[in-house]
Amino acid sequence: MDIVRDLARIVGDDHVLTDEESLTKYSRDMASFERRPQLVVRPGSVEEISAVMRYCYREGIPVTVWGAGTSLTGAVVTDRVILDVSRLNKIHRIDTVNYYVHVDAGVILEDLNKELMREGFFFPPDPASSFICTVGGAIAEGAGGLRCVKYGTVKDWVLALKVVLPDGSIVKLGEPLAKNRAGYNLTQLFVGSEGTLGVIAEAWLKITPIPDAPVRRLYAHFDSWEEAGNAILDIRRSRIIPRMLEFFDRVGLEAANKLHGTSLEVGEAMLLIDVEEYRGDEAAKVVEILKRNGAKSVRVAASEEEAEMLLQVRATMYLALNLMAPSRLIEDVCVPIDKIVEYLAKIKELSAKYGLVISMNGHAGDGNIHPSILYDAGNPSDVEKVDLVVDELMAYAISLGGTITGEHGVGIQKMRHLVSQLRQHNGEEVLRLMKEIKNVFDPRKVMNPGKYIDIPEELV
Amino acid sequence: MDIVRDLARIVGDDHVLTDEESLTKYSRDMASFERRPQLVVRPGSVEEISAVMRYCYREGIPVTVWGAGTSLTGAVVTDRVILDVSRLNKIHRIDTVNYYVHVDAGVILEDLNKELMREGFFFPPDPASSFICTVGGAIAEGAGGLRCVKYGTVKDWVLALKVVLPDGSIVKLGEPLAKNRAGYNLTQLFVGSEGTLGVIAEAWLKITPIPDAPVRRLYAHFDSWEEAGNAILDIRRSRIIPRMLEFFDRVGLEAANKLHGTSLEVGEAMLLIDVEEYRGDEAAKVVEILKRNGAKSVRVAASEEEAEMLLQVRATMYLALNLMAPSRLIEDVCVPIDKIVEYLAKIKELSAKYGLVISMNGHAGDGNIHPSILYDAGNPSDVEKVDLVVDELMAYAISLGGTITGEHGVGIQKMRHLVSQLRQHNGEEVLRLMKEIKNVFDPRKVMNPGKYIDIPEELV
Repeated sequence: MDIVRDLARIVGDDHVLTDEESLTKYSRDMASFERRPQLVVRPGSVEEISAVMRYCYREGIPVTVWGAGTSLTGAVVTDRVILDVSRLNKIHRIDTVNYYVHVDAGVILEDLNKELMREGFFFPPDPASSFICTVGGAIAEGAGGLRCVKYGTVKDWVLALKVVLPDGSIVKLGEPLAKNRAGYNLTQLFVGSEGTLGVIAEAWLKITPIPDAPVRRLYAHFDSWEEAGNAILDIRRSRIIPRMLEFFDRVGLEAANKLHGTSLEVGEAMLLIDVEEYRGDEAAKVVEILKRNGAKSVRVAASEEEAEMLLQVRATMYLALNLMAPSRLIEDVCVPIDKIVEYLAKIKELSAKYGLVISMNGHAGDGNIHPSILYDAGNPSDVEKVDLVVDELMAYAISLGGTITGEHGVGIQKMRHLVSQLRQHNGEEVLRLMKEIKNVFDPRKVMNPGKYIDIPEELV
Repeated sequence: MDIVRDLARIVGDDHVLTDEESLTKYSRDMASFERRPQLVVRPGSVEEISAVMRYCYREGIPVTVWGAGTSLTGAVVTDRVILDVSRLNKIHRIDTVNYYVHVDAGVILEDLNKELMREGFFFPPDPASSFICTVGGAIAEGAGGLRCVKYGTVKDWVLALKVVLPDGSIVKLGEPLAKNRAGYNLTQLFVGSEGTLGVIAEAWLKITPIPDAPVRRLYAHFDSWEEAGNAILDIRRSRIIPRMLEFFDRVGLEAANKLHGTSLEVGEAMLLIDVEEYRGDEAAKVVEILKRNGAKSVRVAASEEEAEMLLQVRATMYLALNLMAPSRLIEDVCVPIDKIVEYLAKIKELSAKYGLVISMNGHAGDGNIHPSILYDAGNPSDVEKVDLVVDELMAYAISLGGTITGEHGVGIQKMRHLVSQLRQHNGEEVLRLMKEIKNVFDPRKVMNPGKYIDIPEELV
């Protein structure tokens, strides 16, 4: 068997990559998980994906699907075959009557939204990597984002998928219809499947009209997380659903102010909120709630420029934090909203206990917290400490009724923690069911083996 | 084995029913599918459900779960054991910060909404049977309703489930959190599973604030379906999302006018529309669209009473139609919205071809059409004709890119048609995958066997 020659027969010589530069490019994800692939194959059509999979399935060759490599958990790295779907990049149809878009897996999310906006529509989930990540990757990860507090995550926006099964069969799951009750929901099995069940080739995604209400962007700073946390609870209880409800801490804001030369008011806890002004008084109500709970300042963006500046400070905070240390790990737990403050206190405690800087930000309206642990990956003692911190962070989230991952997934990073969560919250049987479902789709274990729910026995 | 004695040991003598009256009561669903059960068991707790299932699984006794018996496809009838979950009827927690309700499967949907409304929230899916159907039944059927055009169906509102697996294991699927990426989405496998994978015992359902915008109720009548159809398309293209967008025909309206003594303007095609007035001019825009497309009259309900009367005419139309013939079959296809008019023309054609009255109504904003076939079940020629009409209706829906069921499910009624749809739209492999997933959960085939995707070989 000459795998390079055999795959080249399917996709052409130009689309089987084995050169040093390519292998390096495909050898790490956005969180620095690294494995050097044996080769990269870049099919140009669903039929070519099918032929590649048929071959790899027959030969028992492990395949890892790659969109843009923006995973944060190692879900896209492998030492075997990378199947890059980015050549499938057409928007087939924008249907403004049935409110869906039919799109290839390799289309970049931001490009999709640009096209949709011309028709007055958008696809709401907006992961931080939107400018580079693919539709297929966002579905395989079940991605989230800033707008999800109002609109839900990717899982809420997938109607149907064209999928290549591990054995090369091409099937459609679901229907591009508002309602469909014909058979089990296999579509949702693929959302968040992390490339372990098959290759997502095309998708029919729900879209929705861009709301015509003006949006007010509010910014507030507080002396304590207790005050900010109470403001969050009061906003929820007020039954106003903001379009964005973000929080971040002093460390992140000071880094961002420095990077951008901005001078946003710094406190212990900051909130950034988008309110849709349908009735004309929603923003005023939220301002009142913020002040009542002790906000030291509340800004209502007075111009497009100010609004954009406020968002940029939040959106690029991760870049500012990257400059503070050689390495950084972004965590991704989700807890009940009324447990956020308790969880943030735990992060502070762990930061002090292990002597590591941990910046905290996240999506308050979803209870989704992203602790950013700053460290030096070249320092074994740091690496050991980070592992211990992560274990404690996961265990504490689980103990509060939370989840180890809100939107980044499991990959190779969190298999142990997934076992803990399923065992403590869901019951012993659940992991077995998931493993057997994996086996229904992929009995030869060629799709992204050894990740997500395909957990090695020694970790279970 | 004395099954009555053995089950009585688990649930108590009072909760194993074998008397004539009970067996009759549990022997038909709302669409007159009939099978006489051997016995009915009524567990009073999750633990009792578990013990009943452990026993039935061990002995290989088929079990069919019953909530309120409101299935329209025979999903709840059996000649073996009925497991009635209606004694589990507590609302455990309404969480107005995390926006969910934790509820037992046996709670009636309308009772749930009454409690939620006190807190300013609601659970949007509103099947016609809301006043009687249970939460568990609505989940097992993946139910829809009038508000789904804006809010989606039950599948969009289930966060997590407590489920008893066929072997009696008690597990939780999913998490009551806004975001959770820990493992495959088994929750959505159970939504619309029609009692074939396990027993749904408790649910964590998303809830949402009652919108504070006033709602305008509009009524319009047209001389032709082409005009009404164009109005529907224009409303969709206007990007206004109504809260309700219903259509019905002359036959249904005349029957309803007669039943209620109302005098709603009668045409060939009628629309009933709820518009949320966020900005204050949405209703005016929709009125303009209706008139532009040839509406002969447009009414804007001027009072609560008038609005309620208009809704009642639509909501109870099925009762009025029931009075017109000894028997009635309600169909449930869903097609792309721009194919509704074409589909309605096909219904008229079939009505003439077979000499059967078929009334047409449905949820226009979802493309969900409910043809009501009036006939006499005591007349073998009628029954034969109805079978032929249903076959043609299903085939035509599939050929237009539609589905054989939008919200009523498959049950024992549509197994053949499900096979056709999966074969034509999804690919040969998909039914095999569904059957193997069923086998993962229920290898002994005790859960509602011979229904839904558990299709007898001779029908495949």
